[in-house]
Amino acid sequence: MSVLVVGSTAFDSIKTPKGENPRLLGGSASHAAVAASFFAPVKLVGIVGEDFPAEYMKLYAKHKINVDALQKTSGKTFHWSGEYEVNMNNRRTLATELGVIEHFDPVLPDSHRSTPYVLLANISPAIQHQVLDQMKKPKFVVVDTMDLWLNIARPELLKLLKRVDAFVLNDSEARELTEDDNIVTALKKIHALGPKYVIIKKGEHGAMLSSPKGLFISPAFPLEKVVDPTGAGDSFVGGMIGYLASQPGALDAKLRRAMVYGSVVASFCCEDFGLKATTRSTRKAIEKRVAQLEKIARF
Amino acid sequence: MSVLVVGSTAFDSIKTPKGENPRLLGGSASHAAVAASFFAPVKLVGIVGEDFPAEYMKLYAKHKINVDALQKTSGKTFHWSGEYEVNMNNRRTLATELGVIEHFDPVLPDSHRSTPYVLLANISPAIQHQVLDQMKKPKFVVVDTMDLWLNIARPELLKLLKRVDAFVLNDSEARELTEDDNIVTALKKIHALGPKYVIIKKGEHGAMLSSPKGLFISPAFPLEKVVDPTGAGDSFVGGMIGYLASQPGALDAKLRRAMVYGSVVASFCCEDFGLKATTRSTRKAIEKRVAQLEKIARF
Repeated sequence: MSVLVVGSTAFDSIKTPKGENPRLLGGSASHAAVAASFFAPVKLVGIVGEDFPAEYMKLYAKHKINVDALQKTSGKTFHWSGEYEVNMNNRRTLATELGVIEHFDPVLPDSHRSTPYVLLANISPAIQHQVLDQMKKPKFVVVDTMDLWLNIARPELLKLLKRVDAFVLNDSEARELTEDDNIVTALKKIHALGPKYVIIKKGEHGAMLSSPKGLFISPAFPLEKVVDPTGAGDSFVGGMIGYLASQPGALDAKLRRAMVYGSVVASFCCEDFGLKATTRSTRKAIEKRVAQLEKIARF
Repeated sequence: MSVLVVGSTAFDSIKTPKGENPRLLGGSASHAAVAASFFAPVKLVGIVGEDFPAEYMKLYAKHKINVDALQKTSGKTFHWSGEYEVNMNNRRTLATELGVIEHFDPVLPDSHRSTPYVLLANISPAIQHQVLDQMKKPKFVVVDTMDLWLNIARPELLKLLKRVDAFVLNDSEARELTEDDNIVTALKKIHALGPKYVIIKKGEHGAMLSSPKGLFISPAFPLEKVVDPTGAGDSFVGGMIGYLASQPGALDAKLRRAMVYGSVVASFCCEDFGLKATTRSTRKAIEKRVAQLEKIARF
């Protein structure tokens, strides 16, 4: 089955201790769509400006990503610049130029409205609502977010949480949202906001799922080299929903493995700037790392 | 088989956001010995002053801990005071009174020198060497440490690493020791210092083992309530070596499960001040949490 991904499509200019790369292809939807494409057909919903280069369109095409709902308008593509500290865990934003994304008004073609798996990747909750409003009885809806929306659009986000199956956020966002330092009790508070499935991303420490079947702790793939973690969270959730869409059977049974696949795609993402390592990756390389993680986690 | 544990025996005065408790039974050897006692007979090597109360001796007795090598001398028992911040991850030392531990000169009775499993729990590397010098061909030696010894006794610690089978340290200590921010490459550098097995403690994020059989990621037991994490690392390593000593078979095969048992004993430790929750625990309660962790980690 196929996956619809809405989110940001952007230029990322990234400084890390390992180097500097301007105007890489980035944005939550780019990372998530490429990650999902290893497993299932993907429809991308986003907006770019007239400065968006053909080579980036080719990259989507290489991954057979449907771009019928990728609007191209006059103006500039959303541009984010950021810098990472030595330990790669802390980053700061140097500049944000919204460009065309400021007036993004997604309208889905009929062909997109019945897509069974929907990923509302990180973008404003208003846009996430707008896309969800156009979907016809989706099978499974996942929403990802970032701290920015907790701060400036919390009411819209809370309203959205009542409309989705799964909510993905990182550990510091979970603490911020619930004002609870304990992740286990924070998870309970987040369930009370609506979602049946809550997934907490913990970066190099893996991820945690809370579902009606209980908790699951997913390990992260141990990396010897982290070049650029930008987009790792988007890759995680994209890989996860792509795998889910590709597998038959009950959701609860496949969600744990889906998180492991998401972790592995995220591990590739971290090994080079932007989408470079992810796009070099293959389904075979992903399967190899999943098998390694199975060995690493077995006791 | 039995376990010999050397380390500090102390009074801990602990302030956390959940409350304040003066002069609890503490010290690395107390926590590790009690943790190991759920699985195997334990011989404690330590020193206390004349102020050490009978009730704490009774607590060792309750756990059938052999105290033939627990010296009692004139002077005061080692006393540590510390305070935890709200998130329980950061702590600061308020006061350290070394007392009798400053002149600790452990001499083992003959009955102790052939103990097959040896835990050099956190104490100065000089004391750890001194105990190891007296052992006759131990089967398995584990050394634990803390950042203090990396700073003030590094040459002795490095010498010790060439004499032990396994080295346990936490993630920030691993980074400090190797000057490497990446845990995977840091592990390789630590192996080069001597130990065949290296175990990195990551607190609420679990633990990681590097061995000739590859990496293992052990989950931490998810707790809804953390009252006092003091001694959790000592409980982890104590539970681990106790389980190892209790099981037949090749070490590589049982080390992963041993780490899971250690994590579970550490989880009890965190649920109340000092040793209160650990001593209330039972082998049956430990087995129940291990079974829960198996479910939580399965994919």
